[in-house]
Amino acid sequence: MRAGFYQSDVKPGDKAFNLARVARAFGGASFDLVVLAELFATGYVFASKADAAAIAEKVPDGATTAALVDLARAKRAFIVGSLVEADGEHLFNTAVVVGPHGFIGRHRKIHLPDVERRIFDPGDDVGLFDLDGVRIGVVVCFESWFPEQCRGLALAGADILCHPANFGGTMTPDVIRTRAIENMVFTITANRIGSERMGDSVAEFRGESRIVDPEGTILLQAEGAETLGLVEIDPSRARRKSSAVCSDLLAEIDRAGGSRGAKPLRE
Amino acid sequence: MRAGFYQSDVKPGDKAFNLARVARAFGGASFDLVVLAELFATGYVFASKADAAAIAEKVPDGATTAALVDLARAKRAFIVGSLVEADGEHLFNTAVVVGPHGFIGRHRKIHLPDVERRIFDPGDDVGLFDLDGVRIGVVVCFESWFPEQCRGLALAGADILCHPANFGGTMTPDVIRTRAIENMVFTITANRIGSERMGDSVAEFRGESRIVDPEGTILLQAEGAETLGLVEIDPSRARRKSSAVCSDLLAEIDRAGGSRGAKPLRE
Repeated sequence: MRAGFYQSDVKPGDKAFNLARVARAFGGASFDLVVLAELFATGYVFASKADAAAIAEKVPDGATTAALVDLARAKRAFIVGSLVEADGEHLFNTAVVVGPHGFIGRHRKIHLPDVERRIFDPGDDVGLFDLDGVRIGVVVCFESWFPEQCRGLALAGADILCHPANFGGTMTPDVIRTRAIENMVFTITANRIGSERMGDSVAEFRGESRIVDPEGTILLQAEGAETLGLVEIDPSRARRKSSAVCSDLLAEIDRAGGSRGAKPLRE
Repeated sequence: MRAGFYQSDVKPGDKAFNLARVARAFGGASFDLVVLAELFATGYVFASKADAAAIAEKVPDGATTAALVDLARAKRAFIVGSLVEADGEHLFNTAVVVGPHGFIGRHRKIHLPDVERRIFDPGDDVGLFDLDGVRIGVVVCFESWFPEQCRGLALAGADILCHPANFGGTMTPDVIRTRAIENMVFTITANRIGSERMGDSVAEFRGESRIVDPEGTILLQAEGAETLGLVEIDPSRARRKSSAVCSDLLAEIDRAGGSRGAKPLRE
């Protein structure tokens, strides 16, 4: 399959503009799966929970999810997007997964940095989705720093970790590559570029979106410019769990206690 | 404390030569803790289990452990070494921890790459040691690829992960930095340099030993030359488990299920 990321700047608060930019970037490109950056349609910084609530949407019955479904239908592809979800009084930092046949599911970010805890409640779903036989696990930005979550997704059968992100530091690229290595899965990180004012400081986003294969090879690495990054991958490679170093990774994970007695999916 | 690694080549099978090289490198240097490379006194490649058994030693009653204890006494410092341990019919890839007052303990490598499984049995100890109030966790090379082991050591209170290694690929430096980041601990990797014939091929070792702090900063990074790499670190920084991103890492690890209901050590 042809899979990758769309890395771009975001115009804060202007959903129509940001969604149109995604549509324009997709243009005549051909692909099966694209991951968008975290909060790609709204921006990341909110002065208060009320400000975030003002642009929040229900899922799946919101404008951003609907626009992504339209795009997925037009491109006959799967898209992992991200938005502020409203559910009663609660807000979530939510990834949505859509495809050629419509809405597939959502994942509410579990691990929230302090700056997000003022706004969002943590989610508690697993974040595993079946895309016509290819299984993806969705981890949103800082969630990637928790090996337990990625291990759980890999043992449940995820072939690809899809990773919408908004990071500014140098750490997350190394962390996500480690998730690919230790779980022998593909990872696709979509980070945004540009900056947003955050109180008296400025949040700068780093780009450096990347695609890593199950043996840790960086298949594609963006720098700091707008990039639609696509590569051809064979997701079934993530099911082998065997390398020249270790012929049976699942047995070693079991020895480490990583599967906690549960039977990992062996294929 | 002043802590670091000694990265060097190894003359296969010549323990006296390799131990003398360590003693010469330590020379007039002053330090509190040094990590040596995996199997620094013997080399890594064995044609058979019998070949490995021929240079194996009991622990602590073996020549290499005794030589390290002498060095530790002379330098008034702690040393993490590595050797082939014999215990009855069994061989282990064992790290030994020694200090100014003698032998402290051993850690038998749990996760063995295929090439080592022909030689060694896997260990099953935790690998946590108290060095007069500073706690170290020992992970040997490929063990670092298993987040569960490093997480367990960090939750049990390890301030520093000491990481004797023999790697040739590009992956392990990123992996060990991730262990520092996700656990907010120091890591000290000692990798060897040089090469060894391995059947019809040659195993090349990469060097690139590194010291990483609890916020992921690479404090020192060797290249491919012989290096005694030392930095001043404050191990108590690893006990804060709090950063600008996440003020309570232990609570998030608990949310991730990383502590599995056990009470992590909070100080």
